[in-house]
Amino acid sequence: MPQDNHFSDEERRGVYRAIYERRDVRSHFLPDRVPDDVLHRILDAAHHAPSVGFMQPWDFLVIRDAEIRRSVHRNFECASRRAAEAYRDEQRKLYDSLKLAGILEAPINLCVTCDHARLKGGGLGRQTDPAVALYSTVCAVQNLWLAARAESLGVGWVSILDLEQLKTTLGVPAELTLVAYLCIGYVSEFRPHPDLEEKGWETRSDLASVTHFDRWGVHHSGEQDRK
Amino acid sequence: MPQDNHFSDEERRGVYRAIYERRDVRSHFLPDRVPDDVLHRILDAAHHAPSVGFMQPWDFLVIRDAEIRRSVHRNFECASRRAAEAYRDEQRKLYDSLKLAGILEAPINLCVTCDHARLKGGGLGRQTDPAVALYSTVCAVQNLWLAARAESLGVGWVSILDLEQLKTTLGVPAELTLVAYLCIGYVSEFRPHPDLEEKGWETRSDLASVTHFDRWGVHHSGEQDRK
Repeated sequence: MPQDNHFSDEERRGVYRAIYERRDVRSHFLPDRVPDDVLHRILDAAHHAPSVGFMQPWDFLVIRDAEIRRSVHRNFECASRRAAEAYRDEQRKLYDSLKLAGILEAPINLCVTCDHARLKGGGLGRQTDPAVALYSTVCAVQNLWLAARAESLGVGWVSILDLEQLKTTLGVPAELTLVAYLCIGYVSEFRPHPDLEEKGWETRSDLASVTHFDRWGVHHSGEQDRK
Repeated sequence: MPQDNHFSDEERRGVYRAIYERRDVRSHFLPDRVPDDVLHRILDAAHHAPSVGFMQPWDFLVIRDAEIRRSVHRNFECASRRAAEAYRDEQRKLYDSLKLAGILEAPINLCVTCDHARLKGGGLGRQTDPAVALYSTVCAVQNLWLAARAESLGVGWVSILDLEQLKTTLGVPAELTLVAYLCIGYVSEFRPHPDLEEKGWETRSDLASVTHFDRWGVHHSGEQDRK
């Protein structure tokens, strides 16, 4: 393979550190201001995500206004109370003890939307699966999340929200899809494990159990057998 | 902010290099074998993506078998011919000149699926928007894509496929959602710009035009005004 585009060991370590040390942050936000140049870098990282047909279907709405965040927080509290009703006994106690959003604590909230009707890309690659425009938007979120980790910024994705109400609160045009609502800020710490693993809500599955080779359900690699 | 979790300059540069130098590769695959340990590293990077409720809804099907790849390639050719009918004149000529998949050239193909019914996560965070399970799966794809770039591996996401036919070919259970079909391999080069930009299919939009502050449509930051 050609050598000119290689990463140094430390550069490659940075990529894996971002992937393994990224956390979905809810509890550890600090009020410290995020400088504009840092915010610009993580948004530009998002903007350089892959997109189907080079469609770039995303928009980024940066929310610092306290009143808007209070309104979103009320939306979250209401949605979370409704969601809690699905749980009983020990699971309900555990649910009630989880900190699920840092909307008020994080100095920046970010709403990421997808515009399915965007003309860019000329429809290329979207005829067989219209969801790929949404997928492109999620790639932008994940780029931002990893760049944020490299900048020592925590990010938390809040999905327990009434999305239609949220669109009204934020003035997002009705025809857009609201994909992600993120809380962003510096943190007191990045925990060594995901919160939901630490709190006993769920365990990490074994990679081998979700990896198949050539045929679904074949969990060993023929390549390895031939060694 | 605390210093102990900081990235070195070179580690941070690695993250941004992966983000800016990642390409959606179709034309530049080399036949060189991808070592098992490298494949394991990029799959494990995918497996450490964020997921709603720590649900980990993904499966990874690694395809090296040439006959299966030929079958997928026929699926792609058929879907691409149908897709071409949407274009006329110069745009049709340009479409026909684009190389849109490296299914046969890339030594590894990878199908990534989402299992909405997976019990892991206990439904946490999924009541307000069931699509978040799909979004978690896309985060896994983007983790893999960036880790691959750090390993000098190219990745191309092929979306021009009849997905139902593809599920049959691969034996993917009917109830799963096929999210991504990726071609993975070493490359002769990473181009400086996306193929679709180089070929004149589409241009990159201006980040400022898709960034809003506090209210939709407000493209200047109040923070900056107060400086």
